[in-house]
Amino acid sequence: TRNIELAVVAGDGIGIEVVEQGLAVLDAALATTDVTVTTTPFNLGAQRWHATGETLTDDDLAAIRTHDAILLGAIGDPSVPSGVLERGLLLKLRFALDHYVNLRPGKLYPGVKSPLAEPGEIDFVVVREGTEGPYVGNGGAIRVGTPHEVANEVSVNTAFGVERVVRDAFARAQARPRKHLTLVHKHNVLVHAGHLWRRTVEAVNADFPDVTSDYLHVDAATIFLTTNPSRFDVIVTDNLFGDILTDQAAAITGGIGLAASANINPDRTAPSMFEPVHGSAPDIAGQGKADPTATVLSVAMMLDHLGLPVEAARVEAAVAADLVERGGRVRSTTEVGTALADRVRG
Amino acid sequence: TRNIELAVVAGDGIGIEVVEQGLAVLDAALATTDVTVTTTPFNLGAQRWHATGETLTDDDLAAIRTHDAILLGAIGDPSVPSGVLERGLLLKLRFALDHYVNLRPGKLYPGVKSPLAEPGEIDFVVVREGTEGPYVGNGGAIRVGTPHEVANEVSVNTAFGVERVVRDAFARAQARPRKHLTLVHKHNVLVHAGHLWRRTVEAVNADFPDVTSDYLHVDAATIFLTTNPSRFDVIVTDNLFGDILTDQAAAITGGIGLAASANINPDRTAPSMFEPVHGSAPDIAGQGKADPTATVLSVAMMLDHLGLPVEAARVEAAVAADLVERGGRVRSTTEVGTALADRVRG
Ligand SMILES: CC(C)[C@H](C(=O)O)[C@@H](O)C(=O)O
Ligand SMILES: CC(C)[C@H](C(=O)O)[C@@H](O)C(=O)O
Repeated sequence: TRNIELAVVAGDGIGIEVVEQGLAVLDAALATTDVTVTTTPFNLGAQRWHATGETLTDDDLAAIRTHDAILLGAIGDPSVPSGVLERGLLLKLRFALDHYVNLRPGKLYPGVKSPLAEPGEIDFVVVREGTEGPYVGNGGAIRVGTPHEVANEVSVNTAFGVERVVRDAFARAQARPRKHLTLVHKHNVLVHAGHLWRRTVEAVNADFPDVTSDYLHVDAATIFLTTNPSRFDVIVTDNLFGDILTDQAAAITGGIGLAASANINPDRTAPSMFEPVHGSAPDIAGQGKADPTATVLSVAMMLDHLGLPVEAARVEAAVAADLVERGGRVRSTTEVGTALADRVRG
Repeated sequence: TRNIELAVVAGDGIGIEVVEQGLAVLDAALATTDVTVTTTPFNLGAQRWHATGETLTDDDLAAIRTHDAILLGAIGDPSVPSGVLERGLLLKLRFALDHYVNLRPGKLYPGVKSPLAEPGEIDFVVVREGTEGPYVGNGGAIRVGTPHEVANEVSVNTAFGVERVVRDAFARAQARPRKHLTLVHKHNVLVHAGHLWRRTVEAVNADFPDVTSDYLHVDAATIFLTTNPSRFDVIVTDNLFGDILTDQAAAITGGIGLAASANINPDRTAPSMFEPVHGSAPDIAGQGKADPTATVLSVAMMLDHLGLPVEAARVEAAVAADLVERGGRVRSTTEVGTALADRVRG
């Protein structure tokens, strides 16, 4: 028997509701195995910040580190100044735990209606860098609030950081039928960072000779995601471009209610973190309206990462089957979660 | 009688072909007026760079400055290292001539097929900042080509630069029926730059009390551009986000063959520049396949900027009428240009 120590950061708003369903499906997936799960809830997010002024303490982080994985719901509330929880909690987790591979599938499941008239087959994965780029928090401002204010933001890109994520992306491309990788950047404007990314892709490609690669500027990538998303297999890109493209990817594949993500530390020096792409959606929080599917698919990614690919596949198959039948029906968070858990139990 | 001194930078690839048609339509639009045009061609782009190593000399720039406006086709060729012409010519023009308002309409004309299944009415305009942000060229790298390379890119944002473009965007919103402005940024991550933009929008809104405003993170904006583009009226955003969103906007409104743009210096201290959003498309250059419509619509924006709104409207109406009839028909660059010029002549 094996026990998985799972840190649970339900967070704010609908995060709490969707994580509950994600855990129910996780239980169902492991029911017939000899793997058990122990969950430790972490009270992090808006409530905690209002009560204590804390976002993520060293003790929190040390405690989280002892776990095998993290399941995160959503972070953020309008009552907290913008950036406080994002920088102080969500990004702090990604950076501190070295989640340098932010994996976000863009997959149009059968039965799901895309807003595109002719979506074709959509099945790609974005490997978004998670620990560098414009997300490093390396900005500042002078003369704030005066007519002479200057506010800078620095995108930091290192050979070390770019190479490891590019290598991971090539390995993922090699394991897929089409074996194709697209680098997305903006090297005609961001020449220094862009050329580092480009040279790195060229160099690493030599170690993956069976993988084809091409390049798109980020602006052109948004066009192809609209007109020909089937062209994509693996996309590798920086932290900010990845943020933008993965929301667009979610939109064309049925919305953020279905978009899963994994913040992976491939070296396993710290627990990886699994979270839906959507936010805390305070407008519908507590009403049982949130779709837990993205969280359930994130749980599938977690199972895969934890070496349980059969169980991962069962969860994904349950989602796929449910999506075929779902149609336009409106079901509550619990109804969807229960339906998925039932299917997983078989 | 009045004469317009027009600097023409046809540039590379299809730039040459589409500018020819743009000029033909311009002539047609002015035929019945007492306004004449004198064009000065500027040999700038890949050819010039290969021949002389020059991108844009001080003399070029001084000569261009004496004109009333610039019509630009497209810049760039794979034979030139990435960034050389973009930074050294196109962006240099935008920055040197203080084109701080980069205006890009996102309009779905009747008869044009959108790749969106239910596009609805799409009629917004993006006011993209043109002289700041990550485009300033304030980046650098150390230990290039070694495993210890660090490549940084700095986004520079000033109260001066943000306020003037936000003010321009509010004025444009006020002149439109819906009077709505959406700021797009990423202030939960790029907190310094983002908060400057946000505070500025709030402050300037006080001078435009009849304009409503809201805010979207750039990632969410790509979702709404897919699921509900009708929600947008005026979008104001930074240089990089504007680059990304306007290509997506072009995609949902029929493609970059139709996407016009104006690089405007609202203070008129230097000539403004009008250019299609598309690039030089070397793959189809010289084959008469390029659609000159985007250039013709850019000419309409130029006429408007030069105080000839009636002529601008005639050109836009000619395009609109042609688009209704166009359907899926394949016509050459010249055929489209001639059809548009004929319609303008009436
Ligand atoms: C909440 C925000 C900081 C976050 C990001 O930008 O990474 C979110 O948009 C995401 O994509 O997970
Ligand atoms: C060619 C490139 C530098 C340019 C930009 O990024 O501004 C282009 O994409 C555009 O949108 O006009």
